[in-house]
Amino acid sequence: HRKWSERKVTIFTPMSDQQETGPTMRRLSQLESVVLWNRARQIKRELKQGVKKPYREVIDISWGDPQGGGIKPLSFVRQVLAACHYPQLLNSDKLPEDVRQRAERLLKECAGRSTGSYTATQGIPYIVKGISEFITRRDGGVPSFPNNIYISSGSHAVKTGVLTPVPCYDKVNMSIRELGGVTIPYYLHEDQGWELQIEELNRALESAKGVCNPVALYVMNPGNPTGSLPQRRSSFSWLMRVNDLEFVSYKKVLAEMGPPISETVELASFHSASKGLIGECGLRGGYVELVNVDPAVMEYIYKLFSTDSCASVPGQIALNLMTHPPQPGDPSYSLYNETTLIHNVRRVFEVLNSVPGFSCQPVEGGGFAFPRLHLPLNAIHKAKEAGMQPDEFYCVRLLEESGLLVNPGWNFEQKEGTSHFRMNIMIKEETLEGVLRRLVSFHTKFMKEFS
Amino acid sequence: HRKWSERKVTIFTPMSDQQETGPTMRRLSQLESVVLWNRARQIKRELKQGVKKPYREVIDISWGDPQGGGIKPLSFVRQVLAACHYPQLLNSDKLPEDVRQRAERLLKECAGRSTGSYTATQGIPYIVKGISEFITRRDGGVPSFPNNIYISSGSHAVKTGVLTPVPCYDKVNMSIRELGGVTIPYYLHEDQGWELQIEELNRALESAKGVCNPVALYVMNPGNPTGSLPQRRSSFSWLMRVNDLEFVSYKKVLAEMGPPISETVELASFHSASKGLIGECGLRGGYVELVNVDPAVMEYIYKLFSTDSCASVPGQIALNLMTHPPQPGDPSYSLYNETTLIHNVRRVFEVLNSVPGFSCQPVEGGGFAFPRLHLPLNAIHKAKEAGMQPDEFYCVRLLEESGLLVNPGWNFEQKEGTSHFRMNIMIKEETLEGVLRRLVSFHTKFMKEFS
Repeated sequence: HRKWSERKVTIFTPMSDQQETGPTMRRLSQLESVVLWNRARQIKRELKQGVKKPYREVIDISWGDPQGGGIKPLSFVRQVLAACHYPQLLNSDKLPEDVRQRAERLLKECAGRSTGSYTATQGIPYIVKGISEFITRRDGGVPSFPNNIYISSGSHAVKTGVLTPVPCYDKVNMSIRELGGVTIPYYLHEDQGWELQIEELNRALESAKGVCNPVALYVMNPGNPTGSLPQRRSSFSWLMRVNDLEFVSYKKVLAEMGPPISETVELASFHSASKGLIGECGLRGGYVELVNVDPAVMEYIYKLFSTDSCASVPGQIALNLMTHPPQPGDPSYSLYNETTLIHNVRRVFEVLNSVPGFSCQPVEGGGFAFPRLHLPLNAIHKAKEAGMQPDEFYCVRLLEESGLLVNPGWNFEQKEGTSHFRMNIMIKEETLEGVLRRLVSFHTKFMKEFS
Repeated sequence: HRKWSERKVTIFTPMSDQQETGPTMRRLSQLESVVLWNRARQIKRELKQGVKKPYREVIDISWGDPQGGGIKPLSFVRQVLAACHYPQLLNSDKLPEDVRQRAERLLKECAGRSTGSYTATQGIPYIVKGISEFITRRDGGVPSFPNNIYISSGSHAVKTGVLTPVPCYDKVNMSIRELGGVTIPYYLHEDQGWELQIEELNRALESAKGVCNPVALYVMNPGNPTGSLPQRRSSFSWLMRVNDLEFVSYKKVLAEMGPPISETVELASFHSASKGLIGECGLRGGYVELVNVDPAVMEYIYKLFSTDSCASVPGQIALNLMTHPPQPGDPSYSLYNETTLIHNVRRVFEVLNSVPGFSCQPVEGGGFAFPRLHLPLNAIHKAKEAGMQPDEFYCVRLLEESGLLVNPGWNFEQKEGTSHFRMNIMIKEETLEGVLRRLVSFHTKFMKEFS
């Protein structure tokens, strides 16, 4: 095994977590956290039957689904979709001018002017081109080529040895293993804001010796469940960068490193309409940009995507709207903003770091917080007795007593001996205030009980 | 090898061809029919540049995309979709009452009343249940269980030896081979209306000896490209049935055979919103119903689907509307009809069977005709000289001289020594008349030239 920095590797980087999924994740996790999810279902049933509890409803923030969590979809997105599906709406002046223009433009690019037609395998060429322009803009001019971009409804995973972060959204590992691949865990350094360290990558590579052939590195930006952005703090400069928390893509950093690295390291960079500002999980729209990928592999990738025909047109439209939002001066501009998420990020950080027994790294992106629990030994023993992981034990009690459903850290294969949970913060501001009240009140009681 | 009738097999039956795809297929076929597709692109370019030809535009009926081919989407479908995406439309009385009711009902079943939320892996339970009711109704009471149904955006294929029909839509074979499977061709009997014969299945099974382990039989109902429905003419009764051309599903026939067959033969039955009356290819909605499948395999299938999160919500809505169309008395009922396809089926049969050198089995379902060409020896020699298959040669000349683009039979791996082409008949009536005029005029000239 050569050292990491000398290897020709493929980097997989979902910009937002295209693989995230709600009910699925819950059901699969059932295999692990059976107690928690079963109890949640039961409690919901009991509440329906009128059983008295200290709360009137269960708030489920264990997975990330903004619209499922009550956040209203963006009017611009929904108006364009409605007009594309039913173009008669274009004749009325009830829709803003920019909505009608966008819908007209998109319909012009659909065969037969209809969202019901097939598209090319990679996606509608106009939308694919628009995505490449978005990426070029995002990365300050680093060129992106339409031929390297594929729009997909789902996600496509990879084979054989893949280095995956700990903690990591569980479906990443599951997909790799199901395709016959082996995952090689590398640990993110929590106290350094979930930093990725080159020494740790090298340790992980060593650990793979005789087990598998590591061919790819999976990184998430922002992280899931950690909500962290990679920083330039570490010596592994091409994967890291401080920029006042501005999003900097791995694609851009790779380009800035110059040849030969910028021309040889293979990068597959994913993004989707499911998270972030647009939050349209149900439309199933995502894309992957492939950089420096071997032409023979590109041919195979084309075939892989073409057996799925094409991505859904509504999903493709969502990607167009996400990569080309309304501009200042457009009638729909003012409605299209992101205040909720920024407010929530600040509140979660403030509140959780002010309570003993909690610590939370800053949420720098994405829609999740992943606070750490510093549990008393008594609680850890009690969990063992109940046959549960400590953080699962905490989460079951939290659910039971406060009606809050969060996702225990060990579902993300987090490091032994540490306790965490992941909470969705893509929820209404009022809902978040209620969540924090319930959480702090429960936590204080819990810590007292076991100290 | 035991005989076919004694084996425990899995039958794969797409009721309509969920795997069909337009531009994809064209691009993949390029690998084979390079001359034809390249020439089509070139001619389109020449026409744009003002080059004089005997026609003003190329009509592409080489693949099946009703809306791409100018057929208007169903208003009911599009109104419900528009209202689901942008519920403000429900407040206006411009939409029919049944449209508003359906949209209300569907939104109630979406998390957060939004099409932008994740759904369960199998699909929205209400829609899945509706599909199982539709199947039960379709099959005259043969029960269908929601737990056996999965909604998907794409298609999921199978491993190792699979018997596939000849002719067959090329992506079926491609998918199987790409997954490391082996296809075992069985020939449909053209002169008997593309009948499937048990002797031929047994021959195909024998041919697999020492090559692979046949585990599944792939059947299409209606056939693609043949447009035929399976009939009860043959001794292989459980796969066949005459019913005055009424659609009878394999699911139903299987149930009617009684135990032990009805309880042991594994069946995976696909259907989609891409073809038929609704013709919504771009929404990417399909489902599979699994019958008699081993519980261990069912668990694997759940995992397989869950790595794709869930199908797109617009696609799921399309399935609901397809399986529960407006009923007599509903305001949207009269608009929701299928006269075009029935008219086209009759016209194509009449015209093609009246011209020497053509013969065409009745189109009994689906959206394609697959006429046979009886080409003069001179034409066959000429094709050989040009390095083409006879039917490809014919199709290139047809394109060149009349601007009609159809799909040569050898792209469907049709039997050596026979010539066919597949044409999409899901097009506007006026367009079809133009197509038939061009076709007959070219054909007559071609036959004269080479006789």
